[in-house]
Amino acid sequence: MNITEFLNVLKKEKLEIYTDPSDTICYSFDAANFKEQPAAVIFPRNTQEVSLVLEAANRFQVRVTPRGAGTSLAGGTIVTPGGVSLCLTRMDRILEIDEENLTATVQPGVITFDLHQAAEKKGLFYPPDPGSVKISTIGGNLAVNAGGPHCFKYGVTKDYVLGMEVVLANGKIVRFGGKVIKNVSGFDLGSLFIGSEGMLGVITEATLSLIPLPEEKRTMLVIYDDLNAAASAVADIVRKKIVPATLELMDQDSMRLIESFRPADLPLDAEASILIAIDGSFEQVTKEMKLVEQICKNNGARELRVARTKEEEAKLWEGRRSANGAMSQACKAFVVEDATVPRSKLAEMIMKCKEIAVRYNLPCAILGHCGDGNVHPHLLLQELSAEEWERVERAVDEIFRAALAFGGTLTGEHGIGLAKKKYMNWQFSPETLEFMRLIKRDIDPNNILNPHIML
Amino acid sequence: MNITEFLNVLKKEKLEIYTDPSDTICYSFDAANFKEQPAAVIFPRNTQEVSLVLEAANRFQVRVTPRGAGTSLAGGTIVTPGGVSLCLTRMDRILEIDEENLTATVQPGVITFDLHQAAEKKGLFYPPDPGSVKISTIGGNLAVNAGGPHCFKYGVTKDYVLGMEVVLANGKIVRFGGKVIKNVSGFDLGSLFIGSEGMLGVITEATLSLIPLPEEKRTMLVIYDDLNAAASAVADIVRKKIVPATLELMDQDSMRLIESFRPADLPLDAEASILIAIDGSFEQVTKEMKLVEQICKNNGARELRVARTKEEEAKLWEGRRSANGAMSQACKAFVVEDATVPRSKLAEMIMKCKEIAVRYNLPCAILGHCGDGNVHPHLLLQELSAEEWERVERAVDEIFRAALAFGGTLTGEHGIGLAKKKYMNWQFSPETLEFMRLIKRDIDPNNILNPHIML
Repeated sequence: MNITEFLNVLKKEKLEIYTDPSDTICYSFDAANFKEQPAAVIFPRNTQEVSLVLEAANRFQVRVTPRGAGTSLAGGTIVTPGGVSLCLTRMDRILEIDEENLTATVQPGVITFDLHQAAEKKGLFYPPDPGSVKISTIGGNLAVNAGGPHCFKYGVTKDYVLGMEVVLANGKIVRFGGKVIKNVSGFDLGSLFIGSEGMLGVITEATLSLIPLPEEKRTMLVIYDDLNAAASAVADIVRKKIVPATLELMDQDSMRLIESFRPADLPLDAEASILIAIDGSFEQVTKEMKLVEQICKNNGARELRVARTKEEEAKLWEGRRSANGAMSQACKAFVVEDATVPRSKLAEMIMKCKEIAVRYNLPCAILGHCGDGNVHPHLLLQELSAEEWERVERAVDEIFRAALAFGGTLTGEHGIGLAKKKYMNWQFSPETLEFMRLIKRDIDPNNILNPHIML
Repeated sequence: MNITEFLNVLKKEKLEIYTDPSDTICYSFDAANFKEQPAAVIFPRNTQEVSLVLEAANRFQVRVTPRGAGTSLAGGTIVTPGGVSLCLTRMDRILEIDEENLTATVQPGVITFDLHQAAEKKGLFYPPDPGSVKISTIGGNLAVNAGGPHCFKYGVTKDYVLGMEVVLANGKIVRFGGKVIKNVSGFDLGSLFIGSEGMLGVITEATLSLIPLPEEKRTMLVIYDDLNAAASAVADIVRKKIVPATLELMDQDSMRLIESFRPADLPLDAEASILIAIDGSFEQVTKEMKLVEQICKNNGARELRVARTKEEEAKLWEGRRSANGAMSQACKAFVVEDATVPRSKLAEMIMKCKEIAVRYNLPCAILGHCGDGNVHPHLLLQELSAEEWERVERAVDEIFRAALAFGGTLTGEHGIGLAKKKYMNWQFSPETLEFMRLIKRDIDPNNILNPHIML
């Protein structure tokens, strides 16, 4: 690692670089509980500059960690000790929205919400909607194959990628795909980079597919005294072949924390509530809303609040939206996991998380995307003592063991990063892990891209 | 290559093997115009047997070509000279249809249509529907990331893959994904095998996602005197944010050939017809059918035939279904390409194909999936003379140059195989091709899996 020579090369090329510790300190963190200060933060303005950075980093063996808005919940943007941060936020242009071909071509620093809005202005829809949608960037979304509430109906980020430009670890620029929906020319190497957490290359442009914005969307909040009843309502909805746009679960602890933070009229004595949104054509939504109401009642719903206006809809979402704020306020730090199980195991997984948290004496509030079996248990820390962190660690261990035993996965949408690295060999066989390492060695032989995470 | 020792190892393990030339001759062909007789045809019955075959092949440097039903239109199942055919058709079980999690777990030899039917029995839907759906297998569909008429609305094969089991070139068995919809644990190495045409590994099991079967589906055949008017109707449908389930175009030559083969009441003097199917909820379909009828009329449709019953619907599809038969009858051989362009360039691409075919004095009938810009020009050969084949080759060269110039791709759904290998460097930069070769070398260092195709 020869960082001085590396930086000299880049300075000669007039790249935007910060090395003063008072500038770089802010890039030591993301939304998880890790810290490592980068030796430099580099802001490339275009693909050629990204190529320059990687070519030089490869030559001087400098470790590089690509970064967008830093919203990773798994420590995926924390640099390797002694390494540099490559911040893509200057490359933030929506290059095109093509209404004829239903595509958007974007740079990696585009904020996902900005793409949502640009598409909506043209009656189009980019469904992936991670919780951090208003600040996180498309590049980061691609790096962790981001999800969000819409995934059950609409799929995840990778389902919307048609084309990509990627800079490899050696600085070479490669392109895959384009504006075509069907394309089986050559290996599908673009997919390799989606969800690879910046370990295989830096995505510098993406062509994403858009779909028509649904004509109608309606929301209801359904309250259950009993968590199992809520789960069986979800199962019944699926059995009746209805696919809501969102099925967001809040457990009792979440609702209590929200009510003590920013009251949203949530009941304190109910075990669960589900925010159900249905979208589609006006007629279909009307019909499905009625069916879903009936299914929820048949499964013992205690109360249904159906939004009649946009304002009422916004009100129903208020509680869910302030959940993370409420949790932050209620503790000194929290750890949020995103273990994901087959949908049919959701209720069992939630009960298991609760049982584990009680056993380790940790407050645990659970949010979940019911449609896709994605459970977010939030473990709340009150002391930050070594003893408390150890309890959290052991609880998390058990949560992951449970998720895998249910046929699930370590992470549905946050990524492995630093946080879940040690669990990889619980999920994958030695053969599968060795295959991943082979690909990493092959594409990045000098191990300069995020070498310290995931594997 | 030591084929005798290789076969001895497998015979000792009691694998089903055929080496008699009268048995292996049938495995020398697929649906394209190539021939190479395999030294042996092996029918594994399970993953362990596939693993045995590849482990031994890797040790004795024997070239292996995986194969399903042999419907490749690109020569993707033709063995390397001296190599063996690995036929997956004995592994043909639908292992599970999981109604709670909306998944199907299948072996590679399952015929796609059988999966369609098994899913439909449970009110579920597996949308990918390549033309060969009644005979082609899921393994082959995965190997070329198969498409079909449904892709514009529903996406291609890879959009439905949640989990996979793959045997690597060295015989090691790896697994990716599972029944979870969201999954970002580790690299997405499963995607690497989809569309890799058997060059990176052998898929031995796949977990596919299913969706609810649409409640209603209705079809109309719209006839246009003018091809451009048909194209502008399609553009208008998309502009109005309507996404039909299929938008199948037949040009005048196709309709004439069909009528002289098996009359289906298609007009001989119209330039184009489009089969439009709309699916969804009853109310939405009713509404969208009306809108589409209006759009088609506004764009100068000469006639709309709207199916009122299932029988009428079947009748409308009859012509399209017999198109390939009609073309086979009308010539000694035909070459069908699947160059795909961004949807907005469809009409221009069709005109270009026509112009090229006229210039090379070749009858050319065109079918196309309008929604996804996938054009199938069929060049009909009458003599099979060297001179005629050369004209075909030059015409095909020009067709691909045109597709790429329109921002398209060499193949939307048939694969590169042997047929389009020479065009790869027209589409990809040396850096991108070298990256593909790197991955191939890395995963299959002894180059035993289909070394002669694609790259």
